[in-house]
Amino acid sequence: MEAYLERRRNLIESENTHKLDYREQLAVHASDKYKTAVDIVNTARCDEWRDIWEAAEHTEIGAPFLNTKHIIAKTRLFELIQRMPKGGLLHAHTDASVPLCDVFEIAEEFGARIEIKSTHPLTQHNMQSGIAKVSFRPSKSETPSAIDAQVMLSDDYEAGSWCSYKDLVAHFNDDNLTDFIEKQLLITAKESYITHNTMGKIWSKFGSCFGVLAGLLAYEPVWEEYVKRIVLRCVEDGVGYLETRLLMITELFYDVDCNLRLTRRDSILIFLRGVEAAKKVLAEQGKLDQFYGINIIYCTLRFFDPEEIWTAMLTCIEIYKEFPTLIRGFDLVGHEEASAGYTLKDYLSVLLRFQSKQIEEFGEIRIPYVFHAGETLGDGSVVDDNLYDALLLGTKRIGHGYSLYKHPELMRICREKGVLVESCPISNEVLRLTGGIGNHPIACLINHGVPVSLSSDDPAIFQNPILSYDFYMLINHSTKTNLATLKVLARNSLEYSLLDEQEKSQVISKWERDWEKYLDWIVEERA
Amino acid sequence: MEAYLERRRNLIESENTHKLDYREQLAVHASDKYKTAVDIVNTARCDEWRDIWEAAEHTEIGAPFLNTKHIIAKTRLFELIQRMPKGGLLHAHTDASVPLCDVFEIAEEFGARIEIKSTHPLTQHNMQSGIAKVSFRPSKSETPSAIDAQVMLSDDYEAGSWCSYKDLVAHFNDDNLTDFIEKQLLITAKESYITHNTMGKIWSKFGSCFGVLAGLLAYEPVWEEYVKRIVLRCVEDGVGYLETRLLMITELFYDVDCNLRLTRRDSILIFLRGVEAAKKVLAEQGKLDQFYGINIIYCTLRFFDPEEIWTAMLTCIEIYKEFPTLIRGFDLVGHEEASAGYTLKDYLSVLLRFQSKQIEEFGEIRIPYVFHAGETLGDGSVVDDNLYDALLLGTKRIGHGYSLYKHPELMRICREKGVLVESCPISNEVLRLTGGIGNHPIACLINHGVPVSLSSDDPAIFQNPILSYDFYMLINHSTKTNLATLKVLARNSLEYSLLDEQEKSQVISKWERDWEKYLDWIVEERA
Repeated sequence: MEAYLERRRNLIESENTHKLDYREQLAVHASDKYKTAVDIVNTARCDEWRDIWEAAEHTEIGAPFLNTKHIIAKTRLFELIQRMPKGGLLHAHTDASVPLCDVFEIAEEFGARIEIKSTHPLTQHNMQSGIAKVSFRPSKSETPSAIDAQVMLSDDYEAGSWCSYKDLVAHFNDDNLTDFIEKQLLITAKESYITHNTMGKIWSKFGSCFGVLAGLLAYEPVWEEYVKRIVLRCVEDGVGYLETRLLMITELFYDVDCNLRLTRRDSILIFLRGVEAAKKVLAEQGKLDQFYGINIIYCTLRFFDPEEIWTAMLTCIEIYKEFPTLIRGFDLVGHEEASAGYTLKDYLSVLLRFQSKQIEEFGEIRIPYVFHAGETLGDGSVVDDNLYDALLLGTKRIGHGYSLYKHPELMRICREKGVLVESCPISNEVLRLTGGIGNHPIACLINHGVPVSLSSDDPAIFQNPILSYDFYMLINHSTKTNLATLKVLARNSLEYSLLDEQEKSQVISKWERDWEKYLDWIVEERA
Repeated sequence: MEAYLERRRNLIESENTHKLDYREQLAVHASDKYKTAVDIVNTARCDEWRDIWEAAEHTEIGAPFLNTKHIIAKTRLFELIQRMPKGGLLHAHTDASVPLCDVFEIAEEFGARIEIKSTHPLTQHNMQSGIAKVSFRPSKSETPSAIDAQVMLSDDYEAGSWCSYKDLVAHFNDDNLTDFIEKQLLITAKESYITHNTMGKIWSKFGSCFGVLAGLLAYEPVWEEYVKRIVLRCVEDGVGYLETRLLMITELFYDVDCNLRLTRRDSILIFLRGVEAAKKVLAEQGKLDQFYGINIIYCTLRFFDPEEIWTAMLTCIEIYKEFPTLIRGFDLVGHEEASAGYTLKDYLSVLLRFQSKQIEEFGEIRIPYVFHAGETLGDGSVVDDNLYDALLLGTKRIGHGYSLYKHPELMRICREKGVLVESCPISNEVLRLTGGIGNHPIACLINHGVPVSLSSDDPAIFQNPILSYDFYMLINHSTKTNLATLKVLARNSLEYSLLDEQEKSQVISKWERDWEKYLDWIVEERA
């Protein structure tokens, strides 16, 4: 019996040496404070398993996010996670980082006149069935709208005609209109788990969310304020650094007077003004040192023809030349599975050309690839195969990498070459890859020692405020995960960032200082 | 570009060397017939993707089994899979292998008088809500029932009182009663995916299915016929060999006159009569050579106290002594996650004692462990840890091994020591571990070269006739899977069986002969 238990300990120990957090777990035992903090968090988790999850009749640990979010929000463990300095958010799309209803609020704040158009008349039937899809734009206050709001409610409405949003609102004396619009901006629990519970249906809904407010987001004062809020919300959620994936397909943006005349360069300048505005607020709040910076991964769409991609690449290089410390990488976004889309292999020629072009211009690759790849349930499908091309093309990290765990050789390469997987558990659950954290491959990757960090992808659309819930989901479900595991994920989000070595070490120092303060807070809270 | 494509081919090739079917895929290219057959199956799959799955509005490849079964049943690919010689069924529970409604049919066929009891009066409300749970037993025709059937429908009914089933049926002039009973015998799509969509709820339903007909199944003529049907249905579905997990907790069984006087030994003798009866039918059908044999893995429950387990072990050894070629292994069954259950570590003392006892008696272990382990979403939970103990205790195979893919070291041990995972994708989906084959770990295990075979666990309760659907699910979803992959899984189910080496090579020869005939059939069918 004793001999058996000895063999058992050795086997578990030998298993643990593979784990991503193996060395960090040893560090826990070297520090009393660290150990105490780990214990406090573990105790909070155990208490919650007993008092909340096991006591609940209709839910359980690891149940779907949108069904459990309201329970999680009130827990002690979530409070502990919220305060955690989470390092960087490496995978989030700029235009879905802050709740989209904020965009209205901002537009109104700036006194913009907002116009709305719809694909169908806004009859009760079209609104209830969700068939009518609306979108918005700012417009000069002196220009009369094309049509009267009353017409939009009737079958006489001609699809696509613009109308004053304020006039339209006046025709509703209940919440029907705002509820209808809100539903177009996010994915609800019912959609994800019941009505749209296939990959095809949920992606069709997901894709439609972006267009609704794209026009308003392209409006100078909204854009500036929106970027400011991204930074503020991240800092509020313990995220100090961002590499935001900015999709630059719009050629022209609305200036403050609603003229469609601003260029991509202008948009970047407004983006930077937003960041400065955020820094000003943070300085006022005494929190400036919790913000380590924000950079951009320049994105275009994987539905474009190769020649359109090439044009986007040339624009990216031009913008990089002016903003070399802001533009840090290049990616293609959009549903990898969609039949209209291209695989990386389909784009091979242009993808290699972008690298040659950089070598020609700069003598080296300065805008590396940071590809989405393997966001699929497939096994050997062309989308799954994107993982091969992403790695062969020298991707710095893998966005999602959901199917990577089925690839022993690619896992080895990621480990050995230090290619991090930007894992997005809540995104993958809402978009129907998994039923919940319990069958998400992140635990497999962590246990196999593959570099991973946590990201939230499109927090606004998934009703997921920045990053705390992703951390919570993992630690609450996986017993092997403790505070030290989360620390490794947070540190990875800085170590595998696209910062240069000097910047990186500065940022990591800042985060380590914040981490120590965090441990102090945990330990003192209990005392 | 050429250089890139060369590197790409090499990378994919180097990935494939890890795969379980790597050598088999090479064999495909060495035989024209084999290659043609593989191509025919692949083409059937591609055609179906296009014509069925991509064309469907409300479903997709890899959608849940109970929602897609009726579509699959009509496909050409399914027909090809049904005919496949699948080798052995290594993981299926005897009392849930043939649809339980068959049990009624058999009992009636033998003119048994059937009695029913319920936990609640069979009022409309109690039946509709499903709160009333019924169970059955055979009884001597001359004994009057305890109560009148009419009483069972009223609030005067005292829970647990037996009543004539025939009399009860006479009070229903619609299908309400039979529908109600049928629902107690299996898991419906609505339960699995909607009303009981948590592990806790679905297991509570699942567990309740077994008790309903346990009394009838313990009735001599039913038991014999039931075993006969298991064999016939397996052969019909291309399964030639069985290692059935027989739960021997009942101490006494009903003889043909409904006296509760038969022993476990008698039950085994009746089991063997059932097998002989099946062989007779197969001989008449000219199919006897498609049946390679059936053996038993002796099971008890993981809810019993260690001393009860010990008693079961002693009984097992006694039975083994009389039937040494029939009893091939020992296992514990029941929900691993249940709080009332024991982990393998909890049972350690008695588990080691069983091995010592065998060494004492036989000089070696003759009844090896074939443990259920890791049937969980946990990561580091005590249930996940069962995998360590199963392997340390020398388990010959792992039942389910769902969480094994999170254990790099244990995966290595399974590969090197030849411990096969009895993977049950449809069972795991219906019991809410996965949303479908797409996030089932089997592809990960296959790609990492871990020995795997397919099993169906409790086909009767999951509405899954034996094994064809599990094979279909895998090949239809995983592009990396082809006929050769399925052949490896089928061969594994014999190579990793508990047969001795001589028996094994005989059985494998038979199966290889059947496989060649199968390839001929595929190739000729097309011609």
